[in-house]
Amino acid sequence: MSDVNLTPVGTTACKFWGLGSDGTVGANKSAIKIIGDKTDMYAQAYFAYDSKKSGGITMSHLRFGKQPITSPYLINNADFISCSQQSYVYKYDLLAGLKKGGKFLLNTVWSDADLDKHLPAAMKRYIAKNEIEFYTVNAVDIAKELGLGGRFNMVMQSAFFKIAAIIPLETAVEYLKDAVVKSYGKKGEKVVNMNNGAIDKGIEALHRVEVPAAWADVADDAVETKDAPAFITEIQEVMNRQEGDKLPVSKFTEDMVDGTFPVGGAAFEKRGTAINVPVWNTDKCIGCNQCSYVCPHAAIRPVLTTEEELKNAPEGFPSKQTKAIKDYHFTVAVSTMDCLGCGNCAQVCPVKALDMKPLDDKLKDEQKFFDYGVDAKKVAPKKNPMKKTTVLGSQFEQPLLEFSGACAGCGETPYAKLLTQLFGDRMMVANATGCSSIWGGSAPAMPYTKNHKGHGPAWANSLFEDNAEFGLGMFLGTKSVRDALAADAKAAVEAGKGSDELKAALTEWVDNMNEGEGSRERAEALTALLEAEKGSDELLSKLYDNKDYFVKRSQWILGGDGWAYDIGYGGLDHVLASGEDVNVLVFDTEVYSNTGGQASKSTPAAAIAQFAAAGKKTKKKDLGMMAKSYGYVYVAQVAMGADHNQLMKAITEAEAYHGPSLIIAYAPCINHGIRKGMGNSQLEAKLAVECGYWVNYRYNPQLVGTDKNPFSLDSKEPNFDKFQEFLMGENRYINLQRSFPEAAEALFEKTQNDAKGRYEGYKVLAGK
Amino acid sequence: MSDVNLTPVGTTACKFWGLGSDGTVGANKSAIKIIGDKTDMYAQAYFAYDSKKSGGITMSHLRFGKQPITSPYLINNADFISCSQQSYVYKYDLLAGLKKGGKFLLNTVWSDADLDKHLPAAMKRYIAKNEIEFYTVNAVDIAKELGLGGRFNMVMQSAFFKIAAIIPLETAVEYLKDAVVKSYGKKGEKVVNMNNGAIDKGIEALHRVEVPAAWADVADDAVETKDAPAFITEIQEVMNRQEGDKLPVSKFTEDMVDGTFPVGGAAFEKRGTAINVPVWNTDKCIGCNQCSYVCPHAAIRPVLTTEEELKNAPEGFPSKQTKAIKDYHFTVAVSTMDCLGCGNCAQVCPVKALDMKPLDDKLKDEQKFFDYGVDAKKVAPKKNPMKKTTVLGSQFEQPLLEFSGACAGCGETPYAKLLTQLFGDRMMVANATGCSSIWGGSAPAMPYTKNHKGHGPAWANSLFEDNAEFGLGMFLGTKSVRDALAADAKAAVEAGKGSDELKAALTEWVDNMNEGEGSRERAEALTALLEAEKGSDELLSKLYDNKDYFVKRSQWILGGDGWAYDIGYGGLDHVLASGEDVNVLVFDTEVYSNTGGQASKSTPAAAIAQFAAAGKKTKKKDLGMMAKSYGYVYVAQVAMGADHNQLMKAITEAEAYHGPSLIIAYAPCINHGIRKGMGNSQLEAKLAVECGYWVNYRYNPQLVGTDKNPFSLDSKEPNFDKFQEFLMGENRYINLQRSFPEAAEALFEKTQNDAKGRYEGYKVLAGK
Repeated sequence: MSDVNLTPVGTTACKFWGLGSDGTVGANKSAIKIIGDKTDMYAQAYFAYDSKKSGGITMSHLRFGKQPITSPYLINNADFISCSQQSYVYKYDLLAGLKKGGKFLLNTVWSDADLDKHLPAAMKRYIAKNEIEFYTVNAVDIAKELGLGGRFNMVMQSAFFKIAAIIPLETAVEYLKDAVVKSYGKKGEKVVNMNNGAIDKGIEALHRVEVPAAWADVADDAVETKDAPAFITEIQEVMNRQEGDKLPVSKFTEDMVDGTFPVGGAAFEKRGTAINVPVWNTDKCIGCNQCSYVCPHAAIRPVLTTEEELKNAPEGFPSKQTKAIKDYHFTVAVSTMDCLGCGNCAQVCPVKALDMKPLDDKLKDEQKFFDYGVDAKKVAPKKNPMKKTTVLGSQFEQPLLEFSGACAGCGETPYAKLLTQLFGDRMMVANATGCSSIWGGSAPAMPYTKNHKGHGPAWANSLFEDNAEFGLGMFLGTKSVRDALAADAKAAVEAGKGSDELKAALTEWVDNMNEGEGSRERAEALTALLEAEKGSDELLSKLYDNKDYFVKRSQWILGGDGWAYDIGYGGLDHVLASGEDVNVLVFDTEVYSNTGGQASKSTPAAAIAQFAAAGKKTKKKDLGMMAKSYGYVYVAQVAMGADHNQLMKAITEAEAYHGPSLIIAYAPCINHGIRKGMGNSQLEAKLAVECGYWVNYRYNPQLVGTDKNPFSLDSKEPNFDKFQEFLMGENRYINLQRSFPEAAEALFEKTQNDAKGRYEGYKVLAGK
Repeated sequence: MSDVNLTPVGTTACKFWGLGSDGTVGANKSAIKIIGDKTDMYAQAYFAYDSKKSGGITMSHLRFGKQPITSPYLINNADFISCSQQSYVYKYDLLAGLKKGGKFLLNTVWSDADLDKHLPAAMKRYIAKNEIEFYTVNAVDIAKELGLGGRFNMVMQSAFFKIAAIIPLETAVEYLKDAVVKSYGKKGEKVVNMNNGAIDKGIEALHRVEVPAAWADVADDAVETKDAPAFITEIQEVMNRQEGDKLPVSKFTEDMVDGTFPVGGAAFEKRGTAINVPVWNTDKCIGCNQCSYVCPHAAIRPVLTTEEELKNAPEGFPSKQTKAIKDYHFTVAVSTMDCLGCGNCAQVCPVKALDMKPLDDKLKDEQKFFDYGVDAKKVAPKKNPMKKTTVLGSQFEQPLLEFSGACAGCGETPYAKLLTQLFGDRMMVANATGCSSIWGGSAPAMPYTKNHKGHGPAWANSLFEDNAEFGLGMFLGTKSVRDALAADAKAAVEAGKGSDELKAALTEWVDNMNEGEGSRERAEALTALLEAEKGSDELLSKLYDNKDYFVKRSQWILGGDGWAYDIGYGGLDHVLASGEDVNVLVFDTEVYSNTGGQASKSTPAAAIAQFAAAGKKTKKKDLGMMAKSYGYVYVAQVAMGADHNQLMKAITEAEAYHGPSLIIAYAPCINHGIRKGMGNSQLEAKLAVECGYWVNYRYNPQLVGTDKNPFSLDSKEPNFDKFQEFLMGENRYINLQRSFPEAAEALFEKTQNDAKGRYEGYKVLAGK
């Protein structure tokens, strides 16, 4: 479809490709405002995004004209196209829809000679054949020189006004500079001047590329052949190129008709968006695996190799021998192209054995070490040399959640990743809508994956409000099938079917059918015996046909605090009360993160949120104590950054308990505005616990009626003197002080008193 | 519309009028079963009910024929009509739709002579003019003689088979007697014989009335003129006669277009359905008002009269002088025609000054004493001579909830009635769907009413699940208007408007605008001053125009445990967390009462419910403790029958607290199957507390930070030895033992341990 006929004649259509965080959208909104408010022209805009929480793409579709514009569709016939990210020339069909004689602006460090060398052949041909006016500007370097750091959007904006020529350039500059004073006037003359400089430079430094005639006939680049499933090349990559709309329905038949997406797609993305990535210092490393434990993206992992495997590794593959692991060589491998560069690994390393270094070509190339280390065909999966339920040991288990689109430094994903390391091969997940449904499963690339045996989590997302019920339904469905199987197994034993070995295996299975530990082994042994002996026996065949149900499933219900404390709480309470064996983990960011920041009942007093700017007046709901009131619900509060071991205990106890479990996990979030940056999100959780802002505990119903107190207060006595300091480390509190200094004082005191009161209550429960 | 054309030729249409509890519906279902299962005929049935919880009407519409019957409408062209309640001849147009030559069966104690004397003229004319075959049978006396007590439905059923002659009488008798063996065989021969006797007698004793020819022209009876609003005569009485379908839409215009129904309609019903009613023994009475306190229907009340008023009273008006009240004569007046005869008043009376006696004509006539006593035009409303917030004093306040359709002995209505006595003139109620929405506001007769000044509760019911939010919305709406008024009032004072007296009144109003106590007086004083001084001043006029908002509204949110613990809990939690000044009262029957008995999270372990016959496995949710975890929610558990004073404290404290309040009120219910009968529902609540089954406490956030413990454990140390005895007093537990004796043992122990554990927890909180 062409929009020529539906859009008023004389309309200029402009399309902008940018990165979610590079300011392109903001600049475009300001352009719309300038033209809409200050001139007699009309303007219209659509903004399109992908669903990555970090490093995602944005496309702005802007139209300008003398007549009102009501075109209800995106631009597919553009007069002007801009791209603020050089790397996009390889990823997207940037010029699709650019009119003959249209204009293209590229932010690039490349010279004309570089362009000739680097641009893809298809782009060259399009430019040459369609007589495109091709402009470049090195906005990145200009911004850096002016002292604007990475904020190059003002350069791109003035370049746009010059090239697109929608209004006279002098007028545009005047309005742009007025807007600078308005936006930055408060920050002082220096900032104003830097931005004005960017406006001038965007015009001065603009370069018109002399398009070589030879581009019209340039031959196609050699295509790298890729060892990837058809889904990746035929669906995922197409959708990632923002061309999903062009996919025919027939691509989604067969396995995908019910909405199922194959898992493991994220591993094929290799986005390479980190600025810095960790570099392993072999000598310093003590092999504690904490870097891997905290990594939000599973991009740093310990790898164990035999002599042989080490010998076959790509040249330069680093390794060492550690005290703990006798039989293997030990490597900390970094997936440099999947890393988002948050730096929590380096921060948490007790011996500073990781240095964050710019992701250059050399480090990009080191991706091969990681790829070799995690390739089960090349490096055989090893039996865990340590106890799987320790911090160290857990990291020798393959994470079955990797390379999600979560923000760099995300406080949620490390918890979910750890669950997959412990229970991933027999895990079912019901996921509430929210950040965790976005980083956990938005089309097309799934970060949940499977191991070399093909086992991995089954994951689904229903609605925001009914996730607990949804997970209970999963559990009850499985339970119903397994209970029927147990009856069949008993009947088979009673009827004396099969060998003594089979009868013993059936009996052992029935006796332990609800124990997660050893379930995989029992199931495999039983399956092998049934396969050998079932013959044509109807009952044994029926058992064999249902072998997928032999393994005890680990049922998890995941979601954020908006779901658990508020919108889904009615259902969560009902499901916990049911007494069934389901495990709930709440990613507690204390705010509706995914929708941009509404206060939830988990939000503490005084915290502001985008839509609650005056600070919350009431105290944080004590969800854990409410669940504990049932007596038969396992309840824990955890904070990974504060206590790695307590988290391990809580997760393993919760999963092992044959009843409902609730783990409330403190999750630092970009919405908190942590002053130290998201590279310190693990540290921030530690500080939260040290000052009493957050408290770790476990309530284990299995201890009721024993000598032990079922309630264990795991946090050390906090230093409440540091409470206010902690608040002043996060914008959600700082900004209250800025906006309402008087009210802030009282609310800060209140929220500290709330925390103190809560802690005192826990002490009583703990008998302290 | 006539159904002749749509219903197969040869179909016999039979309509039965009965009382909800007289077994008519059950007998009709069994007739359908006999004909459908045992013969080659087809049968169809519709059952229509009113919404009274007790003493309501049922209409069965049965069709029988040789061809399949799919008529999708009630019978309006009947071959046979039966009525099992003699009194209905006055209430309903029983014969409407009976065909010429049709048959009419009336259960009556009247002889033919009595019929001639008592039947309404219209009925006589219809019978005579339409050549109706008119039969009577005295099923009541037959059943009594056979030892069947009030269960006369078998007599009526065999009489029906004889008259309607749908199948040969011998066949019908055979099938009926087979059914008796099936239903009562287990109960022994005696019961079988009694029922077989009833079948025989229903045929033998059937009497064909010789219809006097004079009936065709009998003159209309004198119509009593009634002092009732048009709504009562033109809508309520029509709907109560089951003729609501005939009302034109135009009847519901003006005040009723938005669904509003006038309050106070229930007082015009005077159903007279009690078997026994209390008779006051003037000498014994000590004037404690407890009878009135516990009455579920506001049918017994203390009345205070002056000498003059006593002199003008109807002859025989009883009265005495009491120690407590010096200035007035004291009467306990019984509304004999509104009383449902439960007997809780007599049970609770500490000096046995009330005797339950059959409701005969003399006692019906004593209705006039009550009517005189509550007529504000005849007996002036008096200033309460006692403190309104005491048990004694509260009963000198007019109940603004009276004569509802709740079951006799209902445990819910006494709480709601008490609320209206304390706050009714300034009360707004959001009511969850459930029993309380049925007895509280089902069309056409509203039991909520208003006082002589026209003040009373405003009541509305939204949905089952959103009642807390609905009530919060009511509150916030009012708050918003009042806050704006306060700003206006301050502005008026600052601008120096009006007299010093007015300025003082405005200031006093602003300073106390959220205090319920004295609010009515301040509002009236301010209104009077504004009326006198507003003149043409815009601001003062605006204030005056909003005078209805001067009184502090008392916002209540009412509902059952199905709502509060389960379906509406997510919203309830959110509303309590909001910190706003709303009051929630939960009628805790520990089961979904209105829908016939599903277990809720309030149901204790071991209790069965109609749809949870194996007994609940998990313990009762501790809703109060969950709400208490916020720290700023007032929470109380109460049980009227156990502690009248504690209930008064809880209600007054909750209402006075300027934040959210939650009162959880133990409410005995017919679904409990109390062996002692619903006349002992108050006593049952007492026993529940004495044995530790229920615990009364109050948590008052206003005491946080004071010397006093905010948590007050009001129940005495329970005697847990009586716990099992208590369980064995209610069918919900007894029946578990009958059905699953082994499981019952363990569950009874568990539920006792649950209660003990809960009590121990409360003791810790109370510092005991």
